[in-house]
Amino acid sequence: MNPESSASSVGIVSPQRFHHSGDFPLQCGRRLPGFELVYETYGQLNDKASNAILICHALSGNHHAAGYHDSSDRKPGWWDSCIGPGKPIDSDKFFIVSVNNLGGCHGSTGPRTINPQTGTEWGPDFPAVTVKDWVNSQLLLADHLGIDCFAAVVGGSLGGMQAMQWAIDAPARLQAAVLIASAARLSAQNIAFNEIARQAISADPNFAGGHYRQQHRNPDLGLMLARMVGHVTYLSDDGMRQKFGRELKSGDISLGQDVEFQVESYLQYQGRSFSQRFDANTYLLMTRALDYFDPASDFDNSLSAALAQTRCRFCVISFTTDWRFSAARSKEIVDALIRSERNVCSAVIESEHGHDSFLLPIPRYFEVLGGFLNRLHQDYSDAN
Amino acid sequence: MNPESSASSVGIVSPQRFHHSGDFPLQCGRRLPGFELVYETYGQLNDKASNAILICHALSGNHHAAGYHDSSDRKPGWWDSCIGPGKPIDSDKFFIVSVNNLGGCHGSTGPRTINPQTGTEWGPDFPAVTVKDWVNSQLLLADHLGIDCFAAVVGGSLGGMQAMQWAIDAPARLQAAVLIASAARLSAQNIAFNEIARQAISADPNFAGGHYRQQHRNPDLGLMLARMVGHVTYLSDDGMRQKFGRELKSGDISLGQDVEFQVESYLQYQGRSFSQRFDANTYLLMTRALDYFDPASDFDNSLSAALAQTRCRFCVISFTTDWRFSAARSKEIVDALIRSERNVCSAVIESEHGHDSFLLPIPRYFEVLGGFLNRLHQDYSDAN
Repeated sequence: MNPESSASSVGIVSPQRFHHSGDFPLQCGRRLPGFELVYETYGQLNDKASNAILICHALSGNHHAAGYHDSSDRKPGWWDSCIGPGKPIDSDKFFIVSVNNLGGCHGSTGPRTINPQTGTEWGPDFPAVTVKDWVNSQLLLADHLGIDCFAAVVGGSLGGMQAMQWAIDAPARLQAAVLIASAARLSAQNIAFNEIARQAISADPNFAGGHYRQQHRNPDLGLMLARMVGHVTYLSDDGMRQKFGRELKSGDISLGQDVEFQVESYLQYQGRSFSQRFDANTYLLMTRALDYFDPASDFDNSLSAALAQTRCRFCVISFTTDWRFSAARSKEIVDALIRSERNVCSAVIESEHGHDSFLLPIPRYFEVLGGFLNRLHQDYSDAN
Repeated sequence: MNPESSASSVGIVSPQRFHHSGDFPLQCGRRLPGFELVYETYGQLNDKASNAILICHALSGNHHAAGYHDSSDRKPGWWDSCIGPGKPIDSDKFFIVSVNNLGGCHGSTGPRTINPQTGTEWGPDFPAVTVKDWVNSQLLLADHLGIDCFAAVVGGSLGGMQAMQWAIDAPARLQAAVLIASAARLSAQNIAFNEIARQAISADPNFAGGHYRQQHRNPDLGLMLARMVGHVTYLSDDGMRQKFGRELKSGDISLGQDVEFQVESYLQYQGRSFSQRFDANTYLLMTRALDYFDPASDFDNSLSAALAQTRCRFCVISFTTDWRFSAARSKEIVDALIRSERNVCSAVIESEHGHDSFLLPIPRYFEVLGGFLNRLHQDYSDAN
């Protein structure tokens, strides 16, 4: 594919860097001596800086949400189906900012960054970060970009949690929050799956207490297993049945051969590939941030009290077969927003693809999302 | 607890051994040079040997289903709530046989048995066994016990698959099959979870290609992770919420402490405990038997054609929150039985406890199961 010839692609994009030189206090009580965030932008900021959309990524995501880094790239950014000219998040209308979270492993300050106080990589000593910390760091990026108020903060899964925290912590700085396949907090089952992933990584002998890079090794096995668990739980049973069924890759037990089902080799491939490209300490840190997220806990465990802090419009989208962040969890958010008399539209989208649906170009999903954002564009950007 | 004083307990029981000395052909084409099965019995076989019930265990089960091995035992057998005098599987009425599967690690011939041809433990060289092989080995045990026809073959989960295979392969040798929380074959999602467990075990450096016992080590980490995955998938999201919620065991991130949720330490404890008592090669073998089970595949993928081979009554029980072997999977079995004009009663039991429900004393479940078996007792044993 030639990315530049694709009419609906943002084309070739280059990551940019934002450097914050001051001390940055974290929720855990520690301070970072400055930090950097890597980000990309798509589209043009208008004169009033009123048409900006912030994209918040999920657990294993990064800042490269759309377009290509060079013309030889085979794959575009992770949300390219949704972001671009004429797409639901329309780069002809909006200035779209996509950032790699603090603590990440794709260029923002994180466990692989040199700790200026020691001269070596942070590794496992990188401080615990929370969703609140991410919002605070992204607010500084917004200042740097001259964006007083985002038209929308948009995210799926863990990204939706960030959008929710934005609405609570910085109500004057966004017009809308879009929460896709998200939840107001993890269930015990979700925490349990994260814990399995963490155990797989941290008990891998090659994890070496998090100092694997100093020792020139990598917890490939743990990362592979963590990814396999994630992958299975992000798909639905129905979706996997359609994709793999019980198709054999090889073998016939009646012929005395080992049997391998297609789903097995697929998961192994996905897991191995992930272990080559993702940092183990970042994975631990991100899952901890997920587990800890619980904005209601600051408001006497009342989600509606937490959401009463907000001023923006909300769009809450969920998917029928998503069992990791089910439609019922989105309904809890919608119900709390209604109780706190917020402006909310919501949709439950029919899909066979489980939690992964939020990454897929499902027509009704894109109509709901695109419709919401285009109304926003008419109401705010044009009127201003 | 004093087990002998408990009115509804089968009391102190002793495992027995059945030795089959002839060659035993397996579905994989290999042959075992004889085998042993360890089993327990509860209650008395009547004169006509018409009141016997066979209990088939699930993935990590064994022959010790009821009662105590000695008076200092703190815990009874794994299905003690269901088996005993006056209980749903009533030892006052039935002669109950509970067997450890071939390939197991609790006394039956398996990877920890000495291979007579090499003089060393079989280990990873133990042949692949299937549900059909289990039925064939259990038929030989029935011959040994003088049981021409079981009143019922009963099992939950993988045990239910064995009951189904019994009904298909040996229709003259059982009056009833009870299939609890089972399925006619695994879904891709189920295979995927089993594959994660197998990867966790076989990629553990201490697995040593399955020769861990020769090298005096054990893949504790892999077994722990395998059990954690199993455990989470056997519970329901709702059940976990009720049991653990988001209760913290320790820590407060705002105080700079690591946070640990109760569900995490619970899962770690369960996983570590399992790794001390279960054999890794057996776990691999049992999950492979689960994956491979698919009786319809011998009948042009028609489950009703497979079940048309049967002559017994069926009782099919499932649980509302079981997502690993959902009520929909039991309904597939019931529908196929109806299409093949078999005698089937079925019930979907309300329960919050997911797949683990089949092990719990849920009143309606026990009424359905006990009622079915007691009618059977009246129809066959008394009339004979």
